Amino acid sequence: MNIVIAPDSFKECLSAREVAVAIAEGIKEACPQCSIVRIPVADGGEGTVESMVEAAGGQIVEVESEDALRRPIRSFIGLLNDNSAAVIEMAAASGIGLIHSSERNPLITSTYGTGLLIRHALEKGFKRIIIGIGGSATNDGGMGMAVALGYRFLDSNGREVGHGGGNLKYVSVIDNSEVIPLLGDAEITVACDVTNVLCGPQGASAVFGPQKGATPGMIEELDAGLKHFAGSVRDKLGKNILDVPGAGAAGGLGGGLLAFTPSVLKPGFEIVKNITKLEQHIKEADLVFTGEGKIDFQTQFGKTPYGVAQIASKYGKPVIALAGSIGPGAEVLLDKGITAYFGIADKPMSPEESVKSAGRLLQNTAQQVMRVFLKSKK
Amino acid sequence: MNIVIAPDSFKECLSAREVAVAIAEGIKEACPQCSIVRIPVADGGEGTVESMVEAAGGQIVEVESEDALRRPIRSFIGLLNDNSAAVIEMAAASGIGLIHSSERNPLITSTYGTGLLIRHALEKGFKRIIIGIGGSATNDGGMGMAVALGYRFLDSNGREVGHGGGNLKYVSVIDNSEVIPLLGDAEITVACDVTNVLCGPQGASAVFGPQKGATPGMIEELDAGLKHFAGSVRDKLGKNILDVPGAGAAGGLGGGLLAFTPSVLKPGFEIVKNITKLEQHIKEADLVFTGEGKIDFQTQFGKTPYGVAQIASKYGKPVIALAGSIGPGAEVLLDKGITAYFGIADKPMSPEESVKSAGRLLQNTAQQVMRVFLKSKK
Repeated sequence: MNIVIAPDSFKECLSAREVAVAIAEGIKEACPQCSIVRIPVADGGEGTVESMVEAAGGQIVEVESEDALRRPIRSFIGLLNDNSAAVIEMAAASGIGLIHSSERNPLITSTYGTGLLIRHALEKGFKRIIIGIGGSATNDGGMGMAVALGYRFLDSNGREVGHGGGNLKYVSVIDNSEVIPLLGDAEITVACDVTNVLCGPQGASAVFGPQKGATPGMIEELDAGLKHFAGSVRDKLGKNILDVPGAGAAGGLGGGLLAFTPSVLKPGFEIVKNITKLEQHIKEADLVFTGEGKIDFQTQFGKTPYGVAQIASKYGKPVIALAGSIGPGAEVLLDKGITAYFGIADKPMSPEESVKSAGRLLQNTAQQVMRVFLKSKK
Repeated sequence: MNIVIAPDSFKECLSAREVAVAIAEGIKEACPQCSIVRIPVADGGEGTVESMVEAAGGQIVEVESEDALRRPIRSFIGLLNDNSAAVIEMAAASGIGLIHSSERNPLITSTYGTGLLIRHALEKGFKRIIIGIGGSATNDGGMGMAVALGYRFLDSNGREVGHGGGNLKYVSVIDNSEVIPLLGDAEITVACDVTNVLCGPQGASAVFGPQKGATPGMIEELDAGLKHFAGSVRDKLGKNILDVPGAGAAGGLGGGLLAFTPSVLKPGFEIVKNITKLEQHIKEADLVFTGEGKIDFQTQFGKTPYGVAQIASKYGKPVIALAGSIGPGAEVLLDKGITAYFGIADKPMSPEESVKSAGRLLQNTAQQVMRVFLKSKK
């Protein structure tokens, strides 16, 4: 029997890869001879490189970079098999998890380290780059990233402006004369599951600023800075990034990638689907497992289990969705290709206990479902 | 497809019948055309009559009786199809749920009302009687029950002793000259899942006395009373009930039934199995559901899901066990005929929330499992 496991991450609990591994363990207990393909669906945040390399095959290599406060760090990028693409996660350089919570300050944090990762990938000869932009500590509109690739941002006196969202408001001139030539041939695909625009109440600063340490006053300053920055981009580069859905992702790095690199934004699931030949795997599967931290009414709006179910229903394949929590409206999925969903809790427990035991609970639930499936086949 | 649903009760949550109904609802959602047989396994307590009538077919009729404090009440007995047996639950007369908690006092509570129910069954022409003895408010060794059937209990002065566990110590003579003749031909089967002896630290008074309102001093008095009473039974009737496993059930009514009526004690599951032709139903089933409030290591020691699994594995039938809680050691059941078990919680929740939502959760879990089963058949 062929089993495909294509789950999302369980937010603040397990990465997509960890979810897939736990489910695979449970399946093996029930069916040691089953052939299992693990295709964790990266969400663009921490673990994206690991998940994509797991899903598509490849290796992870160490590279030098800088954190959001521009301190040198050891970071990494993923190189997919056949050199088909390099995979980068911004969280591995400009991530909020890499700085102390007391250091959070989007006025000064920079995406420079992320730019270095892109540069490493280009210099290793990769043209196709996939980049996940979740988990950022920054709100600089991608200015730091652009600097790492050779852009220069000057104020009205012709002096280079400093890093960080607090300096966006000074940008008057954008000089692209020294951009590294490799960038011109690149094809960058940005894994982006949010549709926030750059500025305003649904913009980067207002929505994501607080979790990065922005006070109300800072949010106002950052929002104005991004607006001014977008104006400079429009005037100097002829690109409008102000109202593009997704431009507000990752403190405006979404917009910055569109402005300064040959990028397209795509939902993470679409990217994984393409690089892993997910559809082909599902076509050859007898049973598909997917999962998400919470399955509810919103799952049908493009979340991973829904995407998996869409493909599987084309081929009439059963899809089991496992979740930490089954919420209101989940039942609509039963008409949309999800064969059945199961909460993983094996008894009443607190959310904390569920998070702590999620791996074991996933494994057990997968085992039980697999046993039902196998037995009914007989 | 034929589905058999044979669950235990979820203690302090849902009766076996309610569990079976909820599971059936879930199955019907997944498979409206499935043929469902519900065989709730009564545990001898409240709901036993309803469950047995549901499982074996029959009707419930109202009869007059008395509560444990000898106040008149409307009670009921079950009459199974073809007049094969009458079913009685002591909780419907001498039950702790029928008196106010402030009235609990095993020195005075009597099983007289339970005796009246037996008498009603006999007078309706039933020889075979099944009696569940869970949920009692009494600790009278079945003396009150015997009085209702014509026994007289006299003190050393030849005066009738009063009702209740507090009067057991006065019993000197047991007069069976006026016992109703119908009792001689009766075959009484007592549903009894406990193995407590009559007296001592594992006896009726010590183990079950406190929940019936007995203080430490009362427990001592009740225990001594039962010991004296058992001595009188031995001397006058030639029956030893002191060390019989199950004699201590229901405040010694287990022993009293053995002493004063033609009774045998049997596990509730054995009784239900026999009167419902459970094995035949399972033999004809495609899938079997069972369940219990908690499934764990102890389940293999004769609990309902284990009994169901034993039968099902004879015929290679899949058995799904649903539980409020899956505890340590449950996995041993996977080698003993349980195909798979599922906790019904669909997310992290408190025990109280789980109890409150148990019906809905059971229904949903059954639906999901049924969907897996149906889909894998295709």
